[in-house]
Amino acid sequence: MVAPALLPELWTEILVPICAVIGIAFSLFQWYVVSRVKLTTDLGASSSGGANNGKNGYGDYLIEEEEGVNDQSVVAKCAEIQTAISEGATSFLFTEYKYVGVFMIFFAAVIFVFLGSVEGFSTDNKPCTYDITRTCKPALATAGFSTIAFVLGAVTSVLSGFLGMKIATYANARTTLEARKGVGKAFIVAFRSGAVMGFLLAASGLLVLYITINVFKIYYGDDWEGLFEAITGYGLGGSSMALFGRVGGGIYTKAADVGADLVGKIERNIPEDDPRNPAVIADNVGDNVGDIAGMGSDLFGSYAEASCAALVVASISSFGINHDFTAMCYPLLISSMGILVCLITTLFATDFFEIKVVKEIEPALKNQLIISTVIMTVGIAIVSWVGLPSSFTIFNFGTQKVVKNWQLFLCVCVGLWAGLIIGFVTEYYTSNAYSPVQDVADSCRTGAATNVIFGLALGYKSVIIPIFAIAISIFVSFSFAAMYGVAVAALGMLSTIATGLAIDAYGPISDNAGGIAEMAGMSHRIRERTDALDAAGNTTAAIGKGFAIGSAALVSLALFGAFVSRAGIHTVDVLTPKVIIGLLVGAMLPYWFSAMTMKSVGSAALKMVEEVRRQFNTIPGLMEGTAKPDYATCVKISTDASIKEMIPPGCLVMLTPLIVGFFFGVETLSGVLAGSLVSGVQIAISASNTGGAWDNAKKYIEAGVSEHAKSLGPKGSEPHKAAVIGDTIGDPLKDTSGPSLNILIKLMAVESLVFAPFFATHGGILFKYL
Amino acid sequence: MVAPALLPELWTEILVPICAVIGIAFSLFQWYVVSRVKLTTDLGASSSGGANNGKNGYGDYLIEEEEGVNDQSVVAKCAEIQTAISEGATSFLFTEYKYVGVFMIFFAAVIFVFLGSVEGFSTDNKPCTYDITRTCKPALATAGFSTIAFVLGAVTSVLSGFLGMKIATYANARTTLEARKGVGKAFIVAFRSGAVMGFLLAASGLLVLYITINVFKIYYGDDWEGLFEAITGYGLGGSSMALFGRVGGGIYTKAADVGADLVGKIERNIPEDDPRNPAVIADNVGDNVGDIAGMGSDLFGSYAEASCAALVVASISSFGINHDFTAMCYPLLISSMGILVCLITTLFATDFFEIKVVKEIEPALKNQLIISTVIMTVGIAIVSWVGLPSSFTIFNFGTQKVVKNWQLFLCVCVGLWAGLIIGFVTEYYTSNAYSPVQDVADSCRTGAATNVIFGLALGYKSVIIPIFAIAISIFVSFSFAAMYGVAVAALGMLSTIATGLAIDAYGPISDNAGGIAEMAGMSHRIRERTDALDAAGNTTAAIGKGFAIGSAALVSLALFGAFVSRAGIHTVDVLTPKVIIGLLVGAMLPYWFSAMTMKSVGSAALKMVEEVRRQFNTIPGLMEGTAKPDYATCVKISTDASIKEMIPPGCLVMLTPLIVGFFFGVETLSGVLAGSLVSGVQIAISASNTGGAWDNAKKYIEAGVSEHAKSLGPKGSEPHKAAVIGDTIGDPLKDTSGPSLNILIKLMAVESLVFAPFFATHGGILFKYL
Repeated sequence: MVAPALLPELWTEILVPICAVIGIAFSLFQWYVVSRVKLTTDLGASSSGGANNGKNGYGDYLIEEEEGVNDQSVVAKCAEIQTAISEGATSFLFTEYKYVGVFMIFFAAVIFVFLGSVEGFSTDNKPCTYDITRTCKPALATAGFSTIAFVLGAVTSVLSGFLGMKIATYANARTTLEARKGVGKAFIVAFRSGAVMGFLLAASGLLVLYITINVFKIYYGDDWEGLFEAITGYGLGGSSMALFGRVGGGIYTKAADVGADLVGKIERNIPEDDPRNPAVIADNVGDNVGDIAGMGSDLFGSYAEASCAALVVASISSFGINHDFTAMCYPLLISSMGILVCLITTLFATDFFEIKVVKEIEPALKNQLIISTVIMTVGIAIVSWVGLPSSFTIFNFGTQKVVKNWQLFLCVCVGLWAGLIIGFVTEYYTSNAYSPVQDVADSCRTGAATNVIFGLALGYKSVIIPIFAIAISIFVSFSFAAMYGVAVAALGMLSTIATGLAIDAYGPISDNAGGIAEMAGMSHRIRERTDALDAAGNTTAAIGKGFAIGSAALVSLALFGAFVSRAGIHTVDVLTPKVIIGLLVGAMLPYWFSAMTMKSVGSAALKMVEEVRRQFNTIPGLMEGTAKPDYATCVKISTDASIKEMIPPGCLVMLTPLIVGFFFGVETLSGVLAGSLVSGVQIAISASNTGGAWDNAKKYIEAGVSEHAKSLGPKGSEPHKAAVIGDTIGDPLKDTSGPSLNILIKLMAVESLVFAPFFATHGGILFKYL
Repeated sequence: MVAPALLPELWTEILVPICAVIGIAFSLFQWYVVSRVKLTTDLGASSSGGANNGKNGYGDYLIEEEEGVNDQSVVAKCAEIQTAISEGATSFLFTEYKYVGVFMIFFAAVIFVFLGSVEGFSTDNKPCTYDITRTCKPALATAGFSTIAFVLGAVTSVLSGFLGMKIATYANARTTLEARKGVGKAFIVAFRSGAVMGFLLAASGLLVLYITINVFKIYYGDDWEGLFEAITGYGLGGSSMALFGRVGGGIYTKAADVGADLVGKIERNIPEDDPRNPAVIADNVGDNVGDIAGMGSDLFGSYAEASCAALVVASISSFGINHDFTAMCYPLLISSMGILVCLITTLFATDFFEIKVVKEIEPALKNQLIISTVIMTVGIAIVSWVGLPSSFTIFNFGTQKVVKNWQLFLCVCVGLWAGLIIGFVTEYYTSNAYSPVQDVADSCRTGAATNVIFGLALGYKSVIIPIFAIAISIFVSFSFAAMYGVAVAALGMLSTIATGLAIDAYGPISDNAGGIAEMAGMSHRIRERTDALDAAGNTTAAIGKGFAIGSAALVSLALFGAFVSRAGIHTVDVLTPKVIIGLLVGAMLPYWFSAMTMKSVGSAALKMVEEVRRQFNTIPGLMEGTAKPDYATCVKISTDASIKEMIPPGCLVMLTPLIVGFFFGVETLSGVLAGSLVSGVQIAISASNTGGAWDNAKKYIEAGVSEHAKSLGPKGSEPHKAAVIGDTIGDPLKDTSGPSLNILIKLMAVESLVFAPFFATHGGILFKYL
């Protein structure tokens, strides 16, 4: 019997929810601060006067480089555009959730029936899987609770995405208005709004998980094996919603974006976000449903899955066997500490320092990553010291492996720091401050073809260091603490999720702010400021995707390990026919999936192009700005296309584990999971970075800040046209197929884990009867 | 003791070389027939008069739709251009071989030293690895013979590539001249020339291997384990030359092609192969050094490796243990039968039927595949019946597995038919007769961006069925006969290599014929005929690449299995840190490699563009056709760039197994091999097919044979320009990075196999001392 953790159980029971509540309170406070930027036209009225004269620099706009601050018509116009975007986004998400809800009910039934059938729907207690001397709750109970956990995960994921979108659409026009007072003010609003989303999501994910565990514990009592097996449903729910969010949102946003650009920028030669472009509202709605709601659901899914993977492995390790609740909750304690660390980190951007000029934006965002990582390292040390026994055992495919607390500390740290490295490498390959993107921009001299060749090569090359970083994390954490180590490494990477999401959500908010400035007809200087915010946002978006992919790789490996343990196989030997064919087919799935999503974007964009062309050709006075375009039809095209097109790739991902597990058995399924993991992570990283690089190469030419950039520009030059083509190709790569792939690899793994008892009992019928 | 094969040893000793000699004789006969098309201007002179009035339809040109047949100046011009191309290609290959020769000597020394060091350069006999009760030759002897086999393989590979190039440059102008008499005549010349290459390569590969085995046997005597271990050097030699051939040739041809197109077609609006374009000779040289010499070396490498993999596994199975020479030579008997089958198949294209119109070309080539596959199935049955005992055992990672002869027959067949399926799927996705390419062409309406998105999606999608075909082949052959089954399945796919190479080499020959017609200023009708030949050639080239990739996947799996056996590991468990990191990094290598090769093509093309632009700008009268461009400088740029740029990717592939094996050990190396296999095969297929589809989408618009195609054209229209951009992007994908990837996966596997004794003894020092 090993000694329990230093931290008493009661303290754990109190500390975790307190941290979650602090996170939510901080998020609401940030929202309140953002809300003080008024979008109503009674700017000088008494109700807001107090707030505008308060601290945080909100009262001092008269002494800054203000511009058109008192032009009430602009405020009214911004409010109007914001309402249009918000309504479009809400309407799309409701439509999406309606369809996804049907799926959720169906899939919940599948979970219940499949898992219930493991012991023929018997209600009798049974010997535990791993320790047959003890008695566990019936499989039917686990089926029921898994289903409940699945629904809870799905609902939390949906709420995360929806609230994120609401905040983003609430903040975008406010950012635009603040941009009149200077780039620093605009930055703060965009960043605070991002923080609202980051903290709300991280804290509510933690809180719901914590409550669920405690409620389920009332029934399960001492059967922690069954308890945490049921909890994995939470991860599956979160991730399956994230899949539809990412794919649907991704198709929506890129159909609109590509369609708007192809006609607007290339054929009609009007600027981006020009209000004459009929697809412009759909484009801005897309940023919110794709990059915000989709991304939010995605990272929530990663977080939920990493926690579930760690918990399920811990439940069959000494923590679970000895019922050491504090040590069992180590993953939750890490996340709780993460919230506090991110809270301090946020203050560095919002209160401790102030952004005054454009070139301070990127460093400020980068510093967020560095600060949170450094402080978190200390935080992990504290949690590992108080939350873990000094020595314990971890389940390792049939045996128990002895692990020290400092080893687990290193596992979490290696994940955390690997995330930072991936972030920096991503920045290097996608920011136009460095040579890779500048080389791509330079290749535009000889046209679109060389631009595409160089961009693809850049994406391929950008895979190298992140893969080594992931490989080293896996090696260290796996060697120290088997699959539990990999799971907590993933949690380490995700521990600063609140900050990660804040800088990630900041990007689309700035993008939208620029769109609103353009549409409201604000001056060139305002647009320049929002463009500067947006360029930094492009890079942070790529960094966010890097984090999402890196953590997805670790998470899915941990889930894979948990699946293998649960399915009762001890080795996954590549040198067996069942595994090698799984590996080969698994490695093919990301290609199949990408083919579907890219084709979907292409087809939807073609429809959009036709509609936009039709409006330009048939609405008199549209090009001259005297008539208004029909925005609603374009919104409808994007909505319909994305709902229709998200179903086949969704089915591919959701059905593959079921089909393979049922017909071919757990060995082949293991191969499929490993294959899709090692292949998918490469395509995901290269697709994201290629797309990000093309986007910023175009921005580099447009901004023309260096001699080199000026020689390629200005807008409308031949190299710029080539760069626009690259940017358009990159859109589906970086915002649809690339980021959806991390969900593919995670989701197949968590689904396999949830259904592992079923596959272990009834799977592989093809080989059984052949 | 099992009964030996029906076929007596003596017969085997006689039959194999006889078949090889028949193949060589047939090849020389085809060359003779091609040579009767005279390139000298004394067409009517008595020396050639007899031949022209002979059979094979060479005397009847006066009654056909002849055109300019008696224009002697055209013949002279064609001869002159052919000489220029041939000299350029010869000069490049000699330069390439000079550099590669240095590498070969260096690497031969590495092989000798590393393998010799396994037992500390001892000259004493030692107990055998697999059967320690018997005595085997010393490791030093195996080191020496491996080195000799390596050199032999390398020299044969170089000769295969060089002779192929010679034949192709001998045939291209002759094809152009025959095109004056009609499309059927031109087709026959191009096809016969392809057959010369196919048969010469297949037969000489077999003959050299056969002689090597028999010579080595004099020393090794009864130690077949050592004998066939040494023989694996032959595969390594063949494949390492193929790597440089493919990469160097691929960069050469695409730098020239992309450079020529970017300035010629896009900027100057002059047709392809226009003699005014300074890069036109380099472009045509490139077709011969890349698509012919590179492809020849590649497939020779696959063939050599598949044979070696099968032989090395057989040597430790009952064939080797019982010294059943006929059964041992089963792989060689399959190849011998393949030569006879392909000989009959060739007659269907050259003698039994005659092509009269354009639309008969593609079916004729497709029929070659079908006929050879059907006849070969019977051939395999015969060989399996007489060449194998009815029951025997195969080494299966430590145990001996009982196999029946009909099971091995099925293994070979499944490979053969999987090849046919891959061929047809490739055709479906790359021929403009079907909807996928037509959809891509259609997407050009909205510009280059949608063309690229649709093309990439097509390539990703085209992976699905080939991967299932490969997976099924692996499953069947692996289940029946372990790694020996996989190796003979690969041999099955390659058994019709002579026909495969014939239809493959036909493509670049036709392409060059068209180039010569354009440069010689021949009429529009001639060019139309060569274009028709070329369009069919594009598809066959894609089919050839499909075969090359499919067989590479099987070959490298077989080599991988042989490596694992030789390295003494019994399982490659994904659930160990050493293997999973290998898997992840291995899956990344194809991306790294592609990044290098694509960037190389891009950079070399940029240099070419600058030179071509410089010539157009500084040579007066060049555009008007009154001055001649400086072809030699462009040839030099391509040569220098490709020699310089082939070194880094070459080092990546050659050094990775050595570094990983030496520092991280055989488990991690196993992971790397499996990872690069499952990831590389996907990128290779998708890259080849995407490129092929873009090329044919462009040709579809240019040819304008349907209403749909006409609505997109003509040349110079906006959709056509978008299609040209896609074609240019596809060039490095389909001709440089894609096809080089099969060599990457094969070569790393065969290299690991050759160095397996070294790694098993001295490898993994990092983990040993950490």
